[in-house]
Amino acid sequence: MVHINEHFLKLSENYLFADIAKKVSEYAVAHPEADIIRLGIGDVTRPISKPVIQALHAAVDEMGNAATFQGYGPYEGYNFLRNKIVAHDFKARGIKMEADEIFVSDGAKSDVGNITDILGGQNRVAVSDPVYPAYIDTNVMSGCTGEFIDGQWSDIVYLPCTAENKFTPALPSIRPDVIYLCSPNNPTGTALNKTEIKKWVDYALTNNSLILFDAAYEAYIHEDDVPHSIFEIEGAKRVAIEFRSFSKTAGFTGLRCGYAIIPKELTVKTSNGQTASLNQLWIRRQATKFNGTAYIIQKAAEAVFSDEGQRETQATINYYMENARTIRKGLLQAGYKVFGGVNAPYIWLEVPEKGSSWDFFDKLLNGCQVVGTPGVGFGPHGEGYFRLTAFGDQQRTIEAIERIKKFA
Amino acid sequence: MVHINEHFLKLSENYLFADIAKKVSEYAVAHPEADIIRLGIGDVTRPISKPVIQALHAAVDEMGNAATFQGYGPYEGYNFLRNKIVAHDFKARGIKMEADEIFVSDGAKSDVGNITDILGGQNRVAVSDPVYPAYIDTNVMSGCTGEFIDGQWSDIVYLPCTAENKFTPALPSIRPDVIYLCSPNNPTGTALNKTEIKKWVDYALTNNSLILFDAAYEAYIHEDDVPHSIFEIEGAKRVAIEFRSFSKTAGFTGLRCGYAIIPKELTVKTSNGQTASLNQLWIRRQATKFNGTAYIIQKAAEAVFSDEGQRETQATINYYMENARTIRKGLLQAGYKVFGGVNAPYIWLEVPEKGSSWDFFDKLLNGCQVVGTPGVGFGPHGEGYFRLTAFGDQQRTIEAIERIKKFA
Repeated sequence: MVHINEHFLKLSENYLFADIAKKVSEYAVAHPEADIIRLGIGDVTRPISKPVIQALHAAVDEMGNAATFQGYGPYEGYNFLRNKIVAHDFKARGIKMEADEIFVSDGAKSDVGNITDILGGQNRVAVSDPVYPAYIDTNVMSGCTGEFIDGQWSDIVYLPCTAENKFTPALPSIRPDVIYLCSPNNPTGTALNKTEIKKWVDYALTNNSLILFDAAYEAYIHEDDVPHSIFEIEGAKRVAIEFRSFSKTAGFTGLRCGYAIIPKELTVKTSNGQTASLNQLWIRRQATKFNGTAYIIQKAAEAVFSDEGQRETQATINYYMENARTIRKGLLQAGYKVFGGVNAPYIWLEVPEKGSSWDFFDKLLNGCQVVGTPGVGFGPHGEGYFRLTAFGDQQRTIEAIERIKKFA
Repeated sequence: MVHINEHFLKLSENYLFADIAKKVSEYAVAHPEADIIRLGIGDVTRPISKPVIQALHAAVDEMGNAATFQGYGPYEGYNFLRNKIVAHDFKARGIKMEADEIFVSDGAKSDVGNITDILGGQNRVAVSDPVYPAYIDTNVMSGCTGEFIDGQWSDIVYLPCTAENKFTPALPSIRPDVIYLCSPNNPTGTALNKTEIKKWVDYALTNNSLILFDAAYEAYIHEDDVPHSIFEIEGAKRVAIEFRSFSKTAGFTGLRCGYAIIPKELTVKTSNGQTASLNQLWIRRQATKFNGTAYIIQKAAEAVFSDEGQRETQATINYYMENARTIRKGLLQAGYKVFGGVNAPYIWLEVPEKGSSWDFFDKLLNGCQVVGTPGVGFGPHGEGYFRLTAFGDQQRTIEAIERIKKFA
C-alpha cells in the first residue's frame, strides 16, 4: 500500500477564494447584466513599471545570446539582487544584514509554506487570528494543528485580533514554539508599532520561541513608529525569520519573486543538545527542492531598487493608498466601523451588529454587486468583519463605495 | 524549545556539485594558466531560441500595459500551456490525457522534491542506483530512508543499474511502496525500452506500488522502442506520476518551467480504507504552498510548442547529440567502455579496472584539465563509473575528447 500524508485529509475541500469565486460566478450567470465590482482577492491591478519592463526586455535578450545566456542560477538567488536587498531594505534602515542571510524565491507564499519542511511536525504553533489561511493550512499538512473542532484547530494557539484589543494580539498563556505574525496585517489592514513588535521579540527571546514574520505589505507603511522589518528590533536576529515579496510592493503577483531573511545568528537546539542553524537548514532545503528563481525575474526585481524603479513603485503604492482612503472615508460616512487602510492596502470593516460575514457578503453582492471577503474566511476571530481591498481601479473603487453608501 | 525536522541532520554537509566546484576552483588557483573544460554539471549552454525569445518579449509588454497585465495566475498553470502539453506530449502519441492532469511548476526539481509533501514519511522507497541525488535527499528529509550506514541508506531499496545488467534494474525482492525511475537516465545516459517500462508498470499494478517517473530527458530519445512517457504503457495511469521539464528540452534551466502529470485515475487507499486522489492532494498542496509560475515564463513555454519552436528545439538537441557522438566515439577509440549518449545527453564511462571514480576525477582534472562527475556521487552503484555531459560547446567538447585520447 502506498501511504500518503494523511494530515492533508483534515483540510476542507474548498478554499476561501474558490468559494467566493463560485458564489460570484453563480450570481453573474443569474444576473447577466450585473456590473460586478471585485474588491475581494488581494491581487494588484496596475501594470509593471517602465524601468522593470526595460530590465525584463534586456534580460530576455541576454537569454537569447550564447555569450550572455544564463542557465542554472544559485539556489539562494543572484548576489546582484541579494546585495540590493541588503542595501535597500536593511542597511538604509540601520540594520546589519549580509547577502547570505537573504534567500530569493518564487514568492513569499512558497517560502511561508516550505519553511515547515525544516521545522517539522512537532511544534506548538501560534497565529494571530484572523490570519492569512496559508499559515494554518501548511501546518495542518505538517501535522502541527491537531483536529478541527467547532471551527478551531485543537493544537493551534489562537491570538485574537479584534477591535476590542485594537488588533494587537496579547501574549499567550500557553507558550508556543512558533509564532506567526503579519504586520502590516492581511486581512485586518492594521499594523503593529515598535512597542508591540518588541513585546513579541522579547517574549520569543525569553521563551525560546521562533517568530515567523510576514512583512509582505511593508511598502505600504506610512506611520513612523511602525517597523518595516522585525530586525529593527534588538535581538530579533536570534528569534525571527522574515518573509518579503515584490508582489505587493512592485506588482509582481504574476512575475513571482519573494525572499526570506534567515539570520545566521538564528539557531535552535536539537534533541541531543547540538546547535542547528536555520540558515543552513534552509540552504539545504532550497538546494535539494528548488532550483532558483528565473534570472530574468531576478533582473526585474533588481530594477525595482533603481531610483526610477523606486519612484514608480511609490507612485503605484500612492495610487492604491488613494483607493484605501476612498474606501475608508466612504465607509465611515456610511456609518460603518472601519479599521486598517492606513499602513496597508486592506480595509477591515465591522459587519453591522457583528453579524455573519458570509451573510454580509451575500447582501453586498446582491444589493450592490460589490465583492469583498468574509472575515470568517480568515479564522474564527474574523467573524463579524469583512475585508475590502484597495488594489482595484480608482474609478471602479469610487463607484463601489458610492454604491455601498447608497445601499447602507 | 523550537523543534526542527531532525531528518535534515542526517544529510551530509556537502553536495556533489559543490565538492566538484571546490576541487576545480582549488586546481584553478594552483594552475592559473590552465584551460579547464567543464563537462561536469548537466546544465545547458545554447541560448533560448528565437520564437521563445519573441514570446517572452511580447509577454513582457503585456505586463507593462494595464489592459493586458497579468496578476496571480492559476496555481496549476494556465490552460493555454496545459492544453499545448496535452496535445503535443500525449495526444500526438495516442495517449489520452486531460489538461487538469497537468500541473505546471517552476521546474521538475521542485515537483520531484515537493511530491514528498503529499506522500509523507511512511513509505518504503526504491531507487534505481546510480540516481539523481534529489530522489534520495528529499526522502531523507521526509524520514523515509532510515540511517546512512556504509554508504547506503538502511531503509532504501536500491535497484542496481550497472553494465552487468545493461542498466536495466531488476524487480526487487522486497516490495517497495514508491519506486523512482528515470528514463532516459541521469546519470547513466541509458534508457529503458517499452518491455522494461511495462515490467515496472505491471509490477506496480500487482503490488500496489507508486512509480515516480522522471522523463526530463525524453526529448533526447532517438530509438523507436523507448517510450517518451510512462503513460504509453497500458495501466500506467493507475500507478504513476510523471515529471517533465522544459529545462533540457528547450534550454529553460535559467527560465524555470516544468510540469507534473498526475492522472485522475491514480488513487491510493487511506489507513481507514477511504480512497484518496493524488491529483486532488497535489492541487491542495500547490494551492497552499505555491502561487503558479510566472505568466511570461508560461508564455515562453507555450512558444516551444509552435512549429518554429519545435524546429529550433530539435536543432539544439541535435547540436548536443552531436557532442554526445563525439564523446562516445572518442572514448571508444581511447579504449574506454562507454554507455549512454544515444537517447540522452550523458555519457557514462567505466573507470579503467573499475577504479575509484574520485581518483579518476582527479586524474582527468590534473592530467588533461577536463572536469566530469564521479559516478559514486550518484550512489553506491555509480562507483567505478564517470559521467561526461554533452551540453558543452562543440569545439570545446572536441578539444576535451582529444585531450582525453592523448592522455589515455
